[in-house]
Amino acid sequence: MINLKRILVATDFSEHSNVAVKYATALAQAFDSEVILCHVVEAPDLISQIPPTGEGYFPPNFQEQQREAAEKECAKIIADSGIKNGRSLIVEGSAFFEVIRAAKAEDVDLVIVGTHGRGAIAHVLLGSVAEKIVRKAPCPVLTVREGEHEFVMP
Amino acid sequence: MINLKRILVATDFSEHSNVAVKYATALAQAFDSEVILCHVVEAPDLISQIPPTGEGYFPPNFQEQQREAAEKECAKIIADSGIKNGRSLIVEGSAFFEVIRAAKAEDVDLVIVGTHGRGAIAHVLLGSVAEKIVRKAPCPVLTVREGEHEFVMP
Repeated sequence: MINLKRILVATDFSEHSNVAVKYATALAQAFDSEVILCHVVEAPDLISQIPPTGEGYFPPNFQEQQREAAEKECAKIIADSGIKNGRSLIVEGSAFFEVIRAAKAEDVDLVIVGTHGRGAIAHVLLGSVAEKIVRKAPCPVLTVREGEHEFVMP
Repeated sequence: MINLKRILVATDFSEHSNVAVKYATALAQAFDSEVILCHVVEAPDLISQIPPTGEGYFPPNFQEQQREAAEKECAKIIADSGIKNGRSLIVEGSAFFEVIRAAKAEDVDLVIVGTHGRGAIAHVLLGSVAEKIVRKAPCPVLTVREGEHEFVMP
């Protein structure tokens, strides 16, 4: 029998991340696991996000504000999910890199990550984070997609 | 609560596939799932496998012999694994393509696939089959690696 004592779920608060949380909830219930809900606050992407005026868009404490908002959001997700033994982990950096680092540091038995759909750009999107996690994680990885399977009460 | 009614495990009878079977066994036990152990008999690779003499290496019924051997091996794995509700599915063709097709045809809720190690060529090996399965599967995919985590009796 395998033991899934600790499960790390990567979330960017998107719909496909919410599906990942549902799988984490079910697996944690089945295996009595602790769930670590991990969100990576990424550095602001200046090129794509800065407005034409070029000033006043990011407040000086932008990262800190993002972290606080992420902590609240994670706490809410855990409270709403039905996860009995869960905690949030907010880290800063590159999503892929920090998820792998957290999985190692927390010695988790499974990483669950949501991926984008199976459309034309699925390859590109999956490649960006989830695929790297699958390649580099120190443990098994469960990849789930938004809306691909319905959840059925047993 | 999610429902994992049917789990497909892809096996090439390697060590990392055996790890995948262990995860399938545990998940099937937790979720009362049916397990389909899927092996793809690939067309013989003439360039790498044919001996210098160049004749008499592949008998005329080579594919059929492979299929029969695979069926026996799968039956043995299921019997030895502790999987209560399992069956084997032997298909012929390209490993990635046939696993995806089987996952769709059997309407499975999860695919489990073992991958090679995390060494220098991990990218290449993972890319060959498991990565494509992660990208294209119609359902969540659990990727596991040989020897990365020990199994602990709860």
